[in-house]
Amino acid sequence: MSPALAVEAQIETLRQRVDTALDAALPAESAWPETIHRAVRYSLFAGGKRLRPLLVLAAGEAVGGAEVELLPLACAVEMIHTYSLIHDDLPAMDNDDLRRGKPTSHKVFGEAIAILAGDALLTRAFQSMTEVPEDWTGDRLRRRLEATALLGDAAGTSGLIGGQVMDLESEGRDISAPDLERLHRAKTGALLAACVRGGAILGGAQAAQRQCLDRYAAAMGLAFQIVDDVLDATEAAEQLGKTAGKDAAQQKATYVRVHGLERARAMAGELLGEALTALSPLGPKAALLAHLAHRIVERHA
Amino acid sequence: MSPALAVEAQIETLRQRVDTALDAALPAESAWPETIHRAVRYSLFAGGKRLRPLLVLAAGEAVGGAEVELLPLACAVEMIHTYSLIHDDLPAMDNDDLRRGKPTSHKVFGEAIAILAGDALLTRAFQSMTEVPEDWTGDRLRRRLEATALLGDAAGTSGLIGGQVMDLESEGRDISAPDLERLHRAKTGALLAACVRGGAILGGAQAAQRQCLDRYAAAMGLAFQIVDDVLDATEAAEQLGKTAGKDAAQQKATYVRVHGLERARAMAGELLGEALTALSPLGPKAALLAHLAHRIVERHA
Repeated sequence: MSPALAVEAQIETLRQRVDTALDAALPAESAWPETIHRAVRYSLFAGGKRLRPLLVLAAGEAVGGAEVELLPLACAVEMIHTYSLIHDDLPAMDNDDLRRGKPTSHKVFGEAIAILAGDALLTRAFQSMTEVPEDWTGDRLRRRLEATALLGDAAGTSGLIGGQVMDLESEGRDISAPDLERLHRAKTGALLAACVRGGAILGGAQAAQRQCLDRYAAAMGLAFQIVDDVLDATEAAEQLGKTAGKDAAQQKATYVRVHGLERARAMAGELLGEALTALSPLGPKAALLAHLAHRIVERHA
Repeated sequence: MSPALAVEAQIETLRQRVDTALDAALPAESAWPETIHRAVRYSLFAGGKRLRPLLVLAAGEAVGGAEVELLPLACAVEMIHTYSLIHDDLPAMDNDDLRRGKPTSHKVFGEAIAILAGDALLTRAFQSMTEVPEDWTGDRLRRRLEATALLGDAAGTSGLIGGQVMDLESEGRDISAPDLERLHRAKTGALLAACVRGGAILGGAQAAQRQCLDRYAAAMGLAFQIVDDVLDATEAAEQLGKTAGKDAAQQKATYVRVHGLERARAMAGELLGEALTALSPLGPKAALLAHLAHRIVERHA
């Protein structure tokens, strides 16, 4: 098998393990009250690419961590990502009918249940992170607390939520290049960075390793959003699985709007270079992280 | 000072410490992005009686716990309670304009910010619980994780969220007495019980003490909701600080509707008796818990 095929096979295996762990971390669809569990599972198993869980597992692997220590965070970041999509799509927010090629949660279950499904995923993410085996002691308990606090920070008002507030407030207004970067570092970058940093913590990273991964995380968080903006401006809804050209229609702050298409593409390429450079001290164990960086920047939808 | 006055003074002191701790646990109103922090603080400091934090502190005190170990949970339960009120009041849910005598969050800040303010409080609650001093070890770390997982369970789909789903689904329909109890044990009882149980865990309770407090918690959780239903049916909006008679107007499942006013009042009294009996093995250290039980059942608004 070629190295590229081998890493694709590894990713597919990891993705299946994440899905199995997510399934086990949630109440069954038939659990009381059924409506909410149907709604939660509808969005969580809607064909997400599991990029965030993969970043957790890849970062942990890069510092020699064991998968069993990493899976709870891998699940938690996907739950938090999914909750944020459900709430962002609501009529009061971005009012989106389509997500990953399927009707959005509120279109299927109504607004009330969609709000509660988001709440449930956010709550479950933290609950899963804090359930630990009885025989755990000392450092393992501390790492789990540390990674959970980091996740809370990334999902909070200086991260995900703050970015969404700034996004709402910038609609239809001109935004400066520094403000745009701030917006996206909060809205998208913070959670992506928490995946990498959290994976490093749970994997038992040394200080020098953490520094490398922090640089990688910062570069990839921003690159991800730039590529998102480029795709929104250039791809059709069919490829995106969501409404296309919506950013322009809503006069959203985007890299394409502020810097133009070509410059945005070039920025993403530069950030990829930065990310790969940051990984080099970690050696071959960081191969999966490097591969994911390429995928993020070179994806088409 | 009479014993009753002394306990009132103690409650007032504890309430101020909770407010100070809540203030310290949140970003300043001027922190970026300001809108969300204004909205969060608007609801959190809207004159809540801090019953849930008091239950945490009283339960911890009943088993000899230190206040510094209890305050993070005291703050977290109030944040989660406040988030649930903000989301429940949304137009897509109960559509309430008035809460604690003030316009509801979405009336002041709009729906999008109200949804995000709830999300922010929920997130911050868990973040606060998982931030621990560097020098903590072993049992203290484990207790914190355990109390946080318990809180997640109470706030999740078998607790707070599940109760709200059932509440929405029972509007305008007849509900059996067992289903009504299930609804309220989830919607109100689970979080109140988590206050008592979580306080016991953080306070280092022994198994026998935990059992007493579990019985107390179960009785008070239900009593609280029954009294709420009685008040909704009998008091004016001015006293309640929220829209009165709304349960009947929305054909909500209530104890008054299912059992009638007199029987509902009698049930609350019986549950108070059960709660006080459960406390007796704990001796004088449970005085504050006993006082809070009286207040819950004998309150007028």
